[in-house]
Amino acid sequence: MREPAAIIGVGCTRVGEHWESSVLDLAVEACLRALEDAGNPPVRALYVGNAASEILNEQGNLAALLADVLALEGVKAVEVRAGDASGALAFHQACLDVAAHGPGEGAVLACGVEKMTDVLAPEVERVGMLFEDARCTFHSGITIPGLCALLTRLYMDAFGPSYEDIVLFAVNDHRNAVNNPCAQYPFPIKPETIMGSPIVADPIRLFDTPGIGDGAAAAVLCAPEEAPKLSDTPVVVRASEVASGRMNFCEREDMFSIGSLRAAAKRALEAAGVSIKDVSFFEVHNTTSVVGILALEELGLAERGEGWRLVKEERIAIGADWPVNTMGGLKGRGHPWGATGLYQIVEATWQLRGEAGKNQVEGAQVGLTHNMSGLGSLSCVHILARGR
Amino acid sequence: MREPAAIIGVGCTRVGEHWESSVLDLAVEACLRALEDAGNPPVRALYVGNAASEILNEQGNLAALLADVLALEGVKAVEVRAGDASGALAFHQACLDVAAHGPGEGAVLACGVEKMTDVLAPEVERVGMLFEDARCTFHSGITIPGLCALLTRLYMDAFGPSYEDIVLFAVNDHRNAVNNPCAQYPFPIKPETIMGSPIVADPIRLFDTPGIGDGAAAAVLCAPEEAPKLSDTPVVVRASEVASGRMNFCEREDMFSIGSLRAAAKRALEAAGVSIKDVSFFEVHNTTSVVGILALEELGLAERGEGWRLVKEERIAIGADWPVNTMGGLKGRGHPWGATGLYQIVEATWQLRGEAGKNQVEGAQVGLTHNMSGLGSLSCVHILARGR
Repeated sequence: MREPAAIIGVGCTRVGEHWESSVLDLAVEACLRALEDAGNPPVRALYVGNAASEILNEQGNLAALLADVLALEGVKAVEVRAGDASGALAFHQACLDVAAHGPGEGAVLACGVEKMTDVLAPEVERVGMLFEDARCTFHSGITIPGLCALLTRLYMDAFGPSYEDIVLFAVNDHRNAVNNPCAQYPFPIKPETIMGSPIVADPIRLFDTPGIGDGAAAAVLCAPEEAPKLSDTPVVVRASEVASGRMNFCEREDMFSIGSLRAAAKRALEAAGVSIKDVSFFEVHNTTSVVGILALEELGLAERGEGWRLVKEERIAIGADWPVNTMGGLKGRGHPWGATGLYQIVEATWQLRGEAGKNQVEGAQVGLTHNMSGLGSLSCVHILARGR
Repeated sequence: MREPAAIIGVGCTRVGEHWESSVLDLAVEACLRALEDAGNPPVRALYVGNAASEILNEQGNLAALLADVLALEGVKAVEVRAGDASGALAFHQACLDVAAHGPGEGAVLACGVEKMTDVLAPEVERVGMLFEDARCTFHSGITIPGLCALLTRLYMDAFGPSYEDIVLFAVNDHRNAVNNPCAQYPFPIKPETIMGSPIVADPIRLFDTPGIGDGAAAAVLCAPEEAPKLSDTPVVVRASEVASGRMNFCEREDMFSIGSLRAAAKRALEAAGVSIKDVSFFEVHNTTSVVGILALEELGLAERGEGWRLVKEERIAIGADWPVNTMGGLKGRGHPWGATGLYQIVEATWQLRGEAGKNQVEGAQVGLTHNMSGLGSLSCVHILARGR
């Protein structure tokens, strides 16, 4: 499946506490922006990524409902679900749909949305654990920050960095979020501020974890061959790959491996016919800093145990070797679970169109996005490229 | 997208109260049976349809978890969700995946599963309403049987049948369930037994509504051109179509229309290049009897308001004009939400392979399945045909 689709429009809401909006309102806003950006083409299918709206918002069947509200009666409507990988997975399915149908059959709309502030924070933590293996993790009482804490300690012990070294990943996120008009936390943060914030699960500090936020992001897709007619700045999906991995840490090759990311990235690079060196920037899934660092290692940007050095030496900053999370990542832009994968697509599209403002990666030709569920039970990797 | 895929293996569990099994156990059982039936080909992708496992079973991310447990580490794993249309929607996405990739890349496994007995019945009713528009229906306090009751009364008033006439649809289901080894209720039922059962929502009686049951069903797919090599009895997916419709009754063309079914069936028949007269049997989504009758009308088997006569005259029995729900339908086989669409696929495959035993539709060449969410917010129509 070569060049499955092209992106001709993107749109999103700001990530934040949208007390005035429902999950549906947010999705509608993102979709209308993306459709307008695409010149309002006829839409023949809608894909929605969402992690947990039945529990968080007492509203399921979001794809059918969104189709109805967007006056798309009759179109195919599909909801896709994989915890916080739901957004990229919905985008993947939309790409498949375009690839299976070919040109001339109308555009496909992909939307990711999550409204997390309708419930209290402990409920968000509980729901987040439903995407792990209940037998091993949820029913043990541990949380995602708890798992990240174990991983951080192990990483520190094995490879030598201090926790203050590790949180520099979050510092990079915040630095880049400053110029993202849709970021939840558009301000810089100092490592000492993170270190001084409350402990969530020792050693993880509050400001090293994504906030709880609401948001929606959307993209409009068509067949690659028709994109130049429909857009002056098309972005081509060169590869869209999804891979599962061992869900439980204790069953992985080693505690630091994210097999799903390795497999998805390998397949995506092969399908796109590019090497990692050809990639101009990376949007990775940093549940906390240590996970972002492991993602860099798994992508081959650093050897195992060396990713933290890449961060400390600021080699992941915009303008440096490997720009990472150029619009703020999970920590800076925010992490509304089912929306995150599509925020990455929107931001990568901005970069490849040259619309990333002060955060523009000069000469960006190819971008890689990585969205995963939990700590790697499923990874979605997309490789996008400037379309003309 | 012509002949997107072929079916080379199917399997399912019995529908019932599986106290000894988890949602994962059920899915594993169905998948292993389908894979064995297909000769255990290499699998490259897994699709799972499920409506509400996070709430019902405190276990989400079923696709990634199932891939892990089935030792399919690394394969793509996608969960698809649309209330009780989740099963057929997962099957549709699996067909798309096969169509997008073409032959020679490995088989795709589609599974539908629901474990409904982990919670009490009122919670099942509550969760069932989460797939409707919360603003109009869920928050009004009405339930699916309540909506069916309104519809039944309106139908009786508009077109003249008694409720006893209408429940003959359920009687047909039970008659056919007798010979289905996986049916939840494999026994005949008399109309007077239904009429004597407790009122759920006047006039709907308990025995006119699907029971609460657990189950899983699965199918193995490959490209149509490679199916004859992999199976002696391949079944071809001639068309796989999904359409949304107005979610709320008050916004529909008329109260009896199921626009999503009409649109999906029209597109499916066109794509398959067959007329409704060419279809040997039908598996339709009968939430209660009146919905089954409306489905017959929407498919064009009877004029509006005449569907109940088709049922009363036993023209939907096996051996009659239009065999319907040949293995028991939602009432007789059972209706484990996310699994139902795949049970229909399994049963249609049995018919097209000539493996339906005493319920075999003689000379069955083409079968149509219809699975929908709630009362028609989304419909999935599949047209399957004997492969050689």
